[in-house]
Amino acid sequence: MTGYGVDVPSGRPASIATPAPGDPRLARLSLNQWTTRRLGVAEAVDGCARYGIPAIGLWREQVAEHGLSASARLVRDAGLRVSSLCRGGFLTGDPGPAVQDNRRAIEEAATLGADCLVLVVGGLPPGSRDLAGARARVAATLAEIVPYAAASGVRLALEPLHPMYCADRAVLSTLAQAVDLASRWPVEEVGVVVDTFHVWWDPEVLTQIARAGDRIASFQVCDFLVPQPADPLLGRGMMGDGVIAFRPLRAAVDAAGYTGPIEVEIFNADVWAADGHEVIATLARRYVTEVL
Amino acid sequence: MTGYGVDVPSGRPASIATPAPGDPRLARLSLNQWTTRRLGVAEAVDGCARYGIPAIGLWREQVAEHGLSASARLVRDAGLRVSSLCRGGFLTGDPGPAVQDNRRAIEEAATLGADCLVLVVGGLPPGSRDLAGARARVAATLAEIVPYAAASGVRLALEPLHPMYCADRAVLSTLAQAVDLASRWPVEEVGVVVDTFHVWWDPEVLTQIARAGDRIASFQVCDFLVPQPADPLLGRGMMGDGVIAFRPLRAAVDAAGYTGPIEVEIFNADVWAADGHEVIATLARRYVTEVL
Repeated sequence: MTGYGVDVPSGRPASIATPAPGDPRLARLSLNQWTTRRLGVAEAVDGCARYGIPAIGLWREQVAEHGLSASARLVRDAGLRVSSLCRGGFLTGDPGPAVQDNRRAIEEAATLGADCLVLVVGGLPPGSRDLAGARARVAATLAEIVPYAAASGVRLALEPLHPMYCADRAVLSTLAQAVDLASRWPVEEVGVVVDTFHVWWDPEVLTQIARAGDRIASFQVCDFLVPQPADPLLGRGMMGDGVIAFRPLRAAVDAAGYTGPIEVEIFNADVWAADGHEVIATLARRYVTEVL
Repeated sequence: MTGYGVDVPSGRPASIATPAPGDPRLARLSLNQWTTRRLGVAEAVDGCARYGIPAIGLWREQVAEHGLSASARLVRDAGLRVSSLCRGGFLTGDPGPAVQDNRRAIEEAATLGADCLVLVVGGLPPGSRDLAGARARVAATLAEIVPYAAASGVRLALEPLHPMYCADRAVLSTLAQAVDLASRWPVEEVGVVVDTFHVWWDPEVLTQIARAGDRIASFQVCDFLVPQPADPLLGRGMMGDGVIAFRPLRAAVDAAGYTGPIEVEIFNADVWAADGHEVIATLARRYVTEVL
């Protein structure tokens, strides 16, 4: 309901009936598992089946808990596409352990048949103020990882995070910067993530989405809440509960040539406390009213 | 002590003796009045005199409390340069009241002989998700204000705020965007503010400072604390307490041709709770050890 350039009343958007499984409007929807964080892999896969959601973004923590090969079998048997595995990265510290951990993540992504492995690159090392150095280290350590990923047929996806996380989570702060870095490698080896929460504010976002083109490996949606809660990691909301106009961003990603899944990834204490299946039903409705 | 590309131990920097009044290292230092928020104009002016700080950034609220012409006389008699008046702006709502309020702010800046009037442009209007529209309205309402400022000999200074404030405080989010907008007018009419807290994360910051050149109307310093406190407006710290390497930013601003005051502006509950004169002494020391 929210067109770009159109004011909308605050508060929740008008609701619709939950789309039934098989509804063509759900064809590109993907559940990022962290949205229903309390559900294990089996429960999340059940939820996708029940609501006709054809893809899932898995998290390494939950995959490890369920078992890697069991998780791979489960999603395959359910006919689910694995739109991403979250996450590798954290490349700004000691490169040795970072390379090791990312090699494991790459193997997991390969086993799961994930479209990409999302990389959150890491913030400033403790005690450091050397932002340029941290950014250089990301590039250097990434260069050590790409060959493993390429050999395993796993596409890496660099995720720029909102600048509020620059110090402690990701020194990759804009889509332009992510595309610049990714462009050192072939497009099928290193792509980028467009996550509405992280990029909506950027005056260059539409230009950079167009520039990213077939570098776009993942498109994630969730809203930016105002005010943000005390824990800055949990300020993401269900689409329609915040200030983001999703359609122009979705249209730009479409126009750039991206035809893959649209993943709903929400970090929010209230969403996590709610019943997982209710959350899935809500996000299917909101996806239709706010994003499509 | 913090060179770019050099790691520093976390925690407070090594201290030095408080520079005495007349110390040439203080020649460019300015106290932004909000740093010592509990001090009225008279007390802040006294503090500057006691510690030999040659310039002050005034706030309209405190000027109003002390009286406009009395404030003007006070700073003039004390020989203080008024590096800025904070603040006008808030241009994303109804333009009528915005123009009126900014005209008043311009008159105040002229009376005080301020180097510039800082403009915080405002966030999304309540209930709106129309970011492009809000940005367009900033430009349109600014165009109504610039002629008054030019006629009064007051330079406007557009302040890009950290993207975390895009929704609720300033839709101007990068220095590039601020320079783009300011460039519609002569350089002596509309400049930009470089505030380390707001721009330190930006991969383009050094390039954009160079590009800004003589558009730089104000240079403000304070640190970015990690973690940020629950109130996102109060996450600014004394230089040396956070993650910003100030010298490369200061050097870039110098290289761009800016020779004016360097204003210390800190929004921080602990700083506000401390003794005002102690805060001034501390910032004089930290300015020397971290910024110069």
